[in-house]
Amino acid sequence: MKKVTCTAPVNIAVIKYWGKRNEKLILPINSSLSVTLHQDQLKTTTTVAASREFTEDRIWLNGKEDNINHPRLQSCLREIRRLARKRRSSGGHGGVSRILNDKVHICSVNNFPTAAGLASSAAGYACLVLYLSVYTLAKLYGVEGELSEIARQGSGSACRSMYGGFVQWLMGDRADGKDSLAQQVEAESHWPDLRILILVASAEKKHVGSTAGMQTSVETSPLLKFRAESVVPGRMEEMIEAIRKKDFEAFGQLTMKDSNQFHATCLDTYPPIFYLNQVSQRIISLVHRYNGHYGQTKVAYSFDAGPNAVIFTLEPTLNEFVEVVKRCFPPEANGDPYLKGLPVGPAPLSQELLSAVETDVCPGGICYMIVTQPGPGPAESADLSLDLLGPDGLPKPSA
Amino acid sequence: MKKVTCTAPVNIAVIKYWGKRNEKLILPINSSLSVTLHQDQLKTTTTVAASREFTEDRIWLNGKEDNINHPRLQSCLREIRRLARKRRSSGGHGGVSRILNDKVHICSVNNFPTAAGLASSAAGYACLVLYLSVYTLAKLYGVEGELSEIARQGSGSACRSMYGGFVQWLMGDRADGKDSLAQQVEAESHWPDLRILILVASAEKKHVGSTAGMQTSVETSPLLKFRAESVVPGRMEEMIEAIRKKDFEAFGQLTMKDSNQFHATCLDTYPPIFYLNQVSQRIISLVHRYNGHYGQTKVAYSFDAGPNAVIFTLEPTLNEFVEVVKRCFPPEANGDPYLKGLPVGPAPLSQELLSAVETDVCPGGICYMIVTQPGPGPAESADLSLDLLGPDGLPKPSA
Repeated sequence: MKKVTCTAPVNIAVIKYWGKRNEKLILPINSSLSVTLHQDQLKTTTTVAASREFTEDRIWLNGKEDNINHPRLQSCLREIRRLARKRRSSGGHGGVSRILNDKVHICSVNNFPTAAGLASSAAGYACLVLYLSVYTLAKLYGVEGELSEIARQGSGSACRSMYGGFVQWLMGDRADGKDSLAQQVEAESHWPDLRILILVASAEKKHVGSTAGMQTSVETSPLLKFRAESVVPGRMEEMIEAIRKKDFEAFGQLTMKDSNQFHATCLDTYPPIFYLNQVSQRIISLVHRYNGHYGQTKVAYSFDAGPNAVIFTLEPTLNEFVEVVKRCFPPEANGDPYLKGLPVGPAPLSQELLSAVETDVCPGGICYMIVTQPGPGPAESADLSLDLLGPDGLPKPSA
Repeated sequence: MKKVTCTAPVNIAVIKYWGKRNEKLILPINSSLSVTLHQDQLKTTTTVAASREFTEDRIWLNGKEDNINHPRLQSCLREIRRLARKRRSSGGHGGVSRILNDKVHICSVNNFPTAAGLASSAAGYACLVLYLSVYTLAKLYGVEGELSEIARQGSGSACRSMYGGFVQWLMGDRADGKDSLAQQVEAESHWPDLRILILVASAEKKHVGSTAGMQTSVETSPLLKFRAESVVPGRMEEMIEAIRKKDFEAFGQLTMKDSNQFHATCLDTYPPIFYLNQVSQRIISLVHRYNGHYGQTKVAYSFDAGPNAVIFTLEPTLNEFVEVVKRCFPPEANGDPYLKGLPVGPAPLSQELLSAVETDVCPGGICYMIVTQPGPGPAESADLSLDLLGPDGLPKPSA
C-alpha cells in the first residue's frame, strides 16, 4: 500500500464568485479574489492510499463513507490516472506504474465543524476535498506539475485554496476554460498584521445550496449579469491595489461592498435567496457603528452563502473588537469555549465606544468565534500521525 | 370661516420608486407604477379652513400640532396662493379674494395606524398630507386645474395617489420637472377581481427613513443606477401590458421581482439598508411555496421601506390564502381583531396544501391584516361629519 497525506486551507472571498458561464467546466462569470486562512486554525486533511488489495475506489468524508461515483470526482480520478499513464509511457516516474491500476481509498477530515459554514456548505466542503484529493493523488502518482487544471475543474472556488495568502481566480475567456486559473496575488507573509475572525452564527434553517443558488441567479437576476460584466472587473483591480498597498481602509470598504452586492444579487434572484439572517444584519450594523465611532474602517465583514460572518481587521484592533462582539453577542453559558484559535487579550472598552455600538444585545446569537490570519497553501504532510488511513486501508477510528 | 374637507387614498408601488435625480424638485431616477388602495379601508382626510380670525397658519397631523414651517409645505402654500392671486387678477373665482389673505388651519387624520407602514413612513405620510393639503387648498381657492404640478413638487410618490386604479409616475426628462407627472393607466373599475392584503408585521426597530435611504442609495449603489437606467424602462412597459390584459401571472411575477430588486439595491447601498426582517422573509417564502404548490402565480408580495407585506391576489384565491396566512402566523390572543377591511369567508385547507406551505409557524409574527381592493382617487367630501375642524377653527376632539 502506498499512502500520501496532504492538508489544504479554506479561503474566504473578498471579491465574490457567484455564477458559472459553463456548468460542466465550472467556468465563472467573473473573476474573484480570496484570502487563504491559516491551517493552524482551519484545515482539511486528506489521505489517499493505493493498494492491490483494494477491490474498489472508496471515499470517506469526516468519518462517513460517501459516494465515490459523484461525476466530478469520477472525472477527476479518470483525468489524473490518464495523466499518470501518459507520464509513465513517456518514461517518467518509476513507482507509478506499479500502483496505476490499483484502486484508491480517500479519507478526508476537517479540523473545524462544518457548522462554521466555511467552504461555505457541504457542497463547498466536497469541492475542497475533491480538489485536495486530486492534489494528493497527484503526489501519489508523481504528476504534481499539471494538476492545477484538473483540480480546478470540479472544485469551483476551492481552486483558490491552491495557494497561500491572497489569491485570484481569473475567469479567463477561453471556451475550454484553460485560462480560468487560480493565481497568487501576494504571499501569506505580505500583510502580517491582518487578522480574520469567523463569527459562527446560530443557524436556524437550511439554506439554498450555493450550486443551485448561483445557477438560479444566473438565469433570473439582471443585476448579477451587470455586476459580473461591469462592476467586478474594476473591483478586482481596486482590490489587488489595496492588498499590494496594505491599505486597510480601501480593502475593508471594498470587501464589505462586495459582500453586500453579492447578497443583493441573491435577493434579485427569482425566487429570492436569503443568506443573511437577523444575526448577520446585526453584525453588519455593529461593524458600521464601530467604524463610525472611529471615523475610519477598522473592521470589515464578509458573508458567504450562509449567515456566518468573516471579520477582517488589523492586529491592533483585534482585542478590542473581540470584546465588543462579546458584549453585543454574550455567549450562552453552555460550557463550550467561545473563543477559538489565535490568542486574544483583554481590552477595556470606553464608555463612549460602548454607547456608540451597544444598541442591541443579542445573547447566544453567535455560538463561538475562530481567530485566525492569512496562511500558506496546501502541503504534503511529513507528520505520520496525521495519516487518516490505517494499515488495513480503512479510516482510523479517530478519522 | 371657509372650510373644505377632502379625502385621499394611499398607493402601493408595483414598480418601485427609489432615488431622486433632483432632490429639490423631487424628480425620480426612474418611472414607477402603483395601485391606488380603496379609501373604505385606508384613507387620509384633510380639512382646510381659512378665516380672518386666524393669526397664523397652523397644521395638525393625527391630532398633534406639527411644524407649519416645513420648507416643502411652505413652498406649496406660497405657490398655491400665488396661483390663486393670478387667477383673481385675471378675473377668476369671486370668493377667493375674500380669503386669500387669511391664514389657514390644516387638519389631517388617517383612518389607519401609521404602524401599517403605508405611505411607507412618517415622512411618506407627511408627503401624502402635504399633497392632500394642496388638493384641498386648491378646492378652497377654486384653482383646481393647475394643482397637479404643485402637489407633485414636494410629495414624491404620494403624487400617484392623485388618481384611482393603476397609476404611473412618469420620470420625465426636463430639468425643471414639468414632465414628471402622475398619469392614470387604468381606472379602479378595470380589474374588479383584484384584492390587496396588507400584512402588518410586528416591527421591532426603527428603520432608515426613505428620504435619507434613497439618497444614500443613489450615491453609493452601482446596481441602483443600472436598475433605473436599464431595467425599469422595460418593466414599466411589461407592467402596463400585464395590467391592461389583467394577466395576473405576469403582474404578480413582475411585482415580486421588482420588490426584490428594490430591496437588492438597498442591500447594495453603503452602508447597506435592510427593510425586510425575518417575518418578511417568511412571508416571501410562504408565497413562493403557495404558488409552487399550484404551479402558478396565485399570490404576489411587495414590500416598501419597512417589513410589512402587501399581498396581491384575485378574489377566488382570497379566502384560502388568508386562511394559510392565519395558519403560518397565528394571531396572538390579545383581543385585537386580526382581520380588518373587506369580509373574508372560511376556507378549508387540503392536507396537501398544508404540508406544502406550513413549514414554519411563527405566532404573532403578523399583528393583523387589512383586506382591500383598488379604489378611486381623492375627492372633496360632502359629508359634513368628516369635517375635522370645529367652529373655533381648532381640531375637533375626535380629530
